[in-house]
Amino acid sequence: MAIITDQDIDDLAVGAAVLGTGGGGDPYIGKLLAKAAIEQYGPVDLIALEDVPDGATVVACGAMGAPTILIEKIPSGDEGNLALESYEDHTGVNVDAIIPFEAGGINSMVPIILAAKKRVPVIDADGMGRAFPQLEMETFNVYGVPASPVAVADERGNRVLIETQDAAKAEWLARGVTIRMGGQAYIVNYGMDGRTTKRVSVPATMSLAIGIGRTLRAQHRNPVEALISYFSGTHYGYAEVITAGKIADVARKEQNGWSVGIATIEPFDPSKPKVKIRIQNENLVAEEEDGRVLAIVPDLITILDIDTAEAITTERLRYGQRVNVLAVRVPPIMRTPEALAVFGPSAFGLSQAYQPLGS
Amino acid sequence: MAIITDQDIDDLAVGAAVLGTGGGGDPYIGKLLAKAAIEQYGPVDLIALEDVPDGATVVACGAMGAPTILIEKIPSGDEGNLALESYEDHTGVNVDAIIPFEAGGINSMVPIILAAKKRVPVIDADGMGRAFPQLEMETFNVYGVPASPVAVADERGNRVLIETQDAAKAEWLARGVTIRMGGQAYIVNYGMDGRTTKRVSVPATMSLAIGIGRTLRAQHRNPVEALISYFSGTHYGYAEVITAGKIADVARKEQNGWSVGIATIEPFDPSKPKVKIRIQNENLVAEEEDGRVLAIVPDLITILDIDTAEAITTERLRYGQRVNVLAVRVPPIMRTPEALAVFGPSAFGLSQAYQPLGS
Repeated sequence: MAIITDQDIDDLAVGAAVLGTGGGGDPYIGKLLAKAAIEQYGPVDLIALEDVPDGATVVACGAMGAPTILIEKIPSGDEGNLALESYEDHTGVNVDAIIPFEAGGINSMVPIILAAKKRVPVIDADGMGRAFPQLEMETFNVYGVPASPVAVADERGNRVLIETQDAAKAEWLARGVTIRMGGQAYIVNYGMDGRTTKRVSVPATMSLAIGIGRTLRAQHRNPVEALISYFSGTHYGYAEVITAGKIADVARKEQNGWSVGIATIEPFDPSKPKVKIRIQNENLVAEEEDGRVLAIVPDLITILDIDTAEAITTERLRYGQRVNVLAVRVPPIMRTPEALAVFGPSAFGLSQAYQPLGS
Repeated sequence: MAIITDQDIDDLAVGAAVLGTGGGGDPYIGKLLAKAAIEQYGPVDLIALEDVPDGATVVACGAMGAPTILIEKIPSGDEGNLALESYEDHTGVNVDAIIPFEAGGINSMVPIILAAKKRVPVIDADGMGRAFPQLEMETFNVYGVPASPVAVADERGNRVLIETQDAAKAEWLARGVTIRMGGQAYIVNYGMDGRTTKRVSVPATMSLAIGIGRTLRAQHRNPVEALISYFSGTHYGYAEVITAGKIADVARKEQNGWSVGIATIEPFDPSKPKVKIRIQNENLVAEEEDGRVLAIVPDLITILDIDTAEAITTERLRYGQRVNVLAVRVPPIMRTPEALAVFGPSAFGLSQAYQPLGS
């Protein structure tokens, strides 16, 4: 167990953007709220997954909705805890520890906010190992934890509790409520005991994100090489630059509540083919013009600024940006047939099969 | 207290359609479900509002959504009770009696279904005195009963609980959930004690609807005259035929989830001006071509078949139908300034002032 420092939060913001794979929301506002919560309520511990007591009561949490709305619909900072109280009132449990449902993007910060006020630790793990667009795309769901009950709350104190049989329906109903709450709401769900948490979670993803931030903060001469080296020492294990070049085209539209589009990258090396990245909030697949797949979901595909290796989110992609495209293989718990059924290529309507990066 | 008979339910279906003022949904499927529930679980008592014990725990119930969807999305018959159980579980109360939130249309039947299985009486009263399109348009809300918590359930066993500060927000969130449940869901809310129920409800509206059905079943030579005479003996007190003629035009569209339109009636008496009826699910205002208002919400405006005096709902209006347009003044509890603020003309965006019928 270690206290999450102010520096950790800065590093986490940088690393969570890399794990966000283009989506997940800019952690910036979350970072401010997390720092304010620690300032107000005291430090928060980050507890290793293996140290969670078997009998502990654990819940997952995060924000749902269009991350861009955060800028216009400023959180009060209390809505996550309101969702947590609502969850506790409804189930009669007292929560001992909080796990992020998503380590990528802004949802790396939300658990810290809740944990600070609730005075419980955050577990160094999550249910996505990256960012995904939907509430059922969780290892918690893959390995049998019910998504329901789902507690939803907004910054005006409105609360909704959802009970349903399957995780996709929980997503569907919670998304509908979130839209009616103005496009942004806070979620607490996937209640489980500590023993289960250890079985169903992607380990060490919060410290992974902090480590990414720390690596980039060290200002290596070649930051993307430093990142690849860093990943090779983690349980993610393998990362590579699948292309480097200029953004030649970005086609993006809002469709059914998603940011959907294609980014085309023209390699600096003119002998190499253009690479297209398909986007549905997150970057889903990178393929060459002839259809050869370079990397595909659930493996991470993150577009990095060529100089700083900072992640460029989908909404900040622009013509002419010079980028490295980093791909990272996900750990084994995210590559099982059960996992791929929930968040592999077919779950996004892609026809290509999953091939683990580097295989 | 009186047992609701099979004949009562047939009469109620006919009368509730008249109180539906063009909307509220065809009570036919509700009638079948109510009869089946009584067959399965036993008879249901209808208890006079003044006989409700002060300390009784009362909840309102009904179905929300587009009534036309009922035909494609057949209820299981249990969803209302699922909402009731969810409400009881969440609040920790045990419900002693059920009040319809809407006596007009299909929602006259829903409370009977719940009450049969729950083995509690239905209160002879409601919160609308007719049909209205929204959950906040309730005398319960007008006179200070919180709309929240709201328990919502569907035929697949999905349950949602909503807690919010004001009734309009409860409507907004419950409507969003209902849409995601497929356009039809069952609601239990407006929990209150018996003393409050007596203060905030429109009395005797279930027996009023049964009486309307009974009057029409008697096959009077002039059924609409018989209806007017019947109303004059109730606390509604005053009714009149505001025009009689042929449907000359029906313009109707679906807008924001409502059926919105105008029906034009050409009087049989060619010396009289045409009458336009503005519709938003229910018939809101009847006016002559020069703008003179004949009747306006919350007073009832119901289009009746000229021969049988059966109500013609908005979706069944057709060119050439020969009709009487019956208007009925609502009782005093629905005509106070507080009530008109919630379901008077301005609540529907109409610029005309309310003038009680017959004044």
